[in-house]
Amino acid sequence: MTNAPYSGIRVIVYGVGAMGLIATRLLLDKGAEIVGAIGRSPSKVGRDLGDIAGLDRFLGVPVENDLEAVLSRGADIAVVCVSSYLSTMHKHFAACLEHGINVVTIEEETVFPWTTAADQAQSLDALAKANKVTLAASGAQDVFWLNLVTTLLGASHRIVRLSGQCRWNVDDYGPEVAGHLLIGRSKEDFDKYVASSGWPEFVARQTLEALIARIGLEVASITSNVSAVTSEEPIHCQSLGTDIATGFVIGTVDRTFITTREGPRFEFAMEGRVYRAGEADNNLWQVKGEPDLELRCDDANYRFTTCSTLINRIPDVIAAPPGLRSLDMLAPASYRHH
Amino acid sequence: MTNAPYSGIRVIVYGVGAMGLIATRLLLDKGAEIVGAIGRSPSKVGRDLGDIAGLDRFLGVPVENDLEAVLSRGADIAVVCVSSYLSTMHKHFAACLEHGINVVTIEEETVFPWTTAADQAQSLDALAKANKVTLAASGAQDVFWLNLVTTLLGASHRIVRLSGQCRWNVDDYGPEVAGHLLIGRSKEDFDKYVASSGWPEFVARQTLEALIARIGLEVASITSNVSAVTSEEPIHCQSLGTDIATGFVIGTVDRTFITTREGPRFEFAMEGRVYRAGEADNNLWQVKGEPDLELRCDDANYRFTTCSTLINRIPDVIAAPPGLRSLDMLAPASYRHH
Repeated sequence: MTNAPYSGIRVIVYGVGAMGLIATRLLLDKGAEIVGAIGRSPSKVGRDLGDIAGLDRFLGVPVENDLEAVLSRGADIAVVCVSSYLSTMHKHFAACLEHGINVVTIEEETVFPWTTAADQAQSLDALAKANKVTLAASGAQDVFWLNLVTTLLGASHRIVRLSGQCRWNVDDYGPEVAGHLLIGRSKEDFDKYVASSGWPEFVARQTLEALIARIGLEVASITSNVSAVTSEEPIHCQSLGTDIATGFVIGTVDRTFITTREGPRFEFAMEGRVYRAGEADNNLWQVKGEPDLELRCDDANYRFTTCSTLINRIPDVIAAPPGLRSLDMLAPASYRHH
Repeated sequence: MTNAPYSGIRVIVYGVGAMGLIATRLLLDKGAEIVGAIGRSPSKVGRDLGDIAGLDRFLGVPVENDLEAVLSRGADIAVVCVSSYLSTMHKHFAACLEHGINVVTIEEETVFPWTTAADQAQSLDALAKANKVTLAASGAQDVFWLNLVTTLLGASHRIVRLSGQCRWNVDDYGPEVAGHLLIGRSKEDFDKYVASSGWPEFVARQTLEALIARIGLEVASITSNVSAVTSEEPIHCQSLGTDIATGFVIGTVDRTFITTREGPRFEFAMEGRVYRAGEADNNLWQVKGEPDLELRCDDANYRFTTCSTLINRIPDVIAAPPGLRSLDMLAPASYRHH
C-alpha cells in the first residue's frame, strides 16, 4: 500500500465549516489532490483553503462561492459537508452529479433516504445514474451504528430485539446544531415547539432502517419520539457561547422503534447533549436473542470519526455502481493507510 | 427472507463432538437438509444424529464412520468440527474437496494458514480449485477478533498500534483442549514442556495475520510467546473432572506481536483459562493512533458464537470463488434470519 493511497484522486471540498476543514487535512494526509473549494461565508471566500484550515502552508486553492465555476473544472469526487436533510441539500448534490462528479457527504438523510425523502432520493438516484456517478453518505454512524452492529449480528443465531444507545456532544458542532436541538430553551417551549412543528427524524431512524435493509428484514412499522434533557445545574454551552440555567434544555433524546414482518424488533436512542467535564461519546448495542450479545465503544469521538470515516469511504464511492447508494448497499468502510 | 433460509442446502455434519452437535441444531433451525453425519466414537456410531444431539426427534441420519460412503452420496457443504491444525485436518478436508463438497470448519489454522502451514494450505487450495469448491474457516474469531476490528478501523485515520485482549473458558470445551493447554500441571512442568517442545501458534496469530492482510499492510516480523496462568486458590476443572491445587496451571496466555513494513504495530493476548464463578468471555480492542478507538464485548459467549458464526457462513462459502479462502478474503459474516 502506498504512502499516498489517494494519489491521483482529484477532490472538491464542498463546504468549509468545521467538518470540511478537518476533512481537508485528512485528504492531504492521504495524498489526494484538492482541486477546488466551495464556501459561502464572506469571511472565508477568496482566502486559501490551507489558511482557513489552519495548515502550515497555502494550497493554492482559494475558497470560491461560484459553484458553477468550480464544478465545471471537473473532479473525481466532491466531499460535501454543508447541512442536513435532502430538502436542503438536493440542489447541492444535483449540481455535482450533473457535472459528472461523485459525491460523498455527511448529510444524514442520505444514509437511507428512501422513506423520509423518497422523491428527492429517487430523482438524485436517476441523475447519478444518468451521469454515471455515485452519491453516498458516511460519517460516524456508518461505522458505529451500522457496520459494527451488522458485523456483530454475524454471530447471532436469532435476534429477538436489538437495542442501541449513543450519546454525542452538542458542543462538538456549531450553533446551527444547538439551535436545531432547541438548546437553552425552556422545557415548556420545547414541548410546545414539538407539538406544533413536529420533529423531523434525524440520522438515528435512517441508520436503523439501513441496518434492517442490510440484514434482509422488512419493516412493518416505525415510530419515533423525542424528549428534552434539562440541566440539573447551570452549565456553559460553548457552541452558543451562553450559560444555561438549571431546568432548561441541554439536549434531546431521539428514540426510534421499528418492528419487522419477520418478528425481530429494533430500537435506538440517540442523545445529543451539552456535556459536563469528563464526559465522552458512547455507543452501546445489545442483542436479546440467541445468544445475547453486546458491543460497546466508550469514546467514539464522533466529531473526528465522522470526518475520518467519510474520507476512508472515498475509494468505495468512486468504485461503486452509479446511483444513490444508501449505506445498506455498501460493504463496511476500510482503513486506508498513509 | 424466508423462514427457512437454508432450505435446499444439503449438509454433512462432519464431527459429532460438542460443537458439531450444537451446529446440528442450528442447521435444522435454519432449514438445512442434513444428509449425513460422520463420527468416530464407538458410543455414537450407528445412533441417530437427532438422538445424540439431544433433539426431541430422530432425523433419520445415522452417525457413520465410513467416510467414503457418506461423502460419495454427495452434499453441498460439510460442516467440519473435528480437531485443530492443518497437519491433523488436511486429510479430512481433502476427502471432502475431492468429492466436490465445500467445507466450512472451526479448524483454527485455516483462518490464515499461509505462513504456519504453507504447503498444506497450497495443496488444499489447488485441490479445492480443481474440484470447483471452497474451503474456509470460521468461528467466534471471525466476528470478534477480525471483522469487528477491521470494521472499527474504517473509522481510523491512522493506526500506530492495535492491541487486542480476549479471554475464553477452558471448561467450555472438552478434555482435549484442557490437555493441550497443560491444565493441572505444575508451572515447572509447563515451562519445561514449552522449552523442549515449543508451542504451536494457535488461532490468535492466524487471526491477527488475516486482519493485517485484510487492511492491506505487509508483515515485517512476527514474534509470539506463551505463559502459564496459575491458580491463586483451589479450583475445579470441569472438562478434566478434577480439582486443581493452588499454584498449578489453570490457563495460558498466548501473545502475538506483529510489526508491518508500513509502520503500524499489532499485538493480541489470548487467555484460555478455567473460570471462577461469575466470569464471562471478554473481548477488548484498542487503537492508538488518530483517533484512539476502543471496542469491547463483555460476554462474547465464544462457545456458542463459534457455532452460530460457522453456520451463518455457509451461504458465503458456497458462493465464494473456488479455493481455500482465508478469512481476509471474505466479507463479514451475515445474520441469517429464520
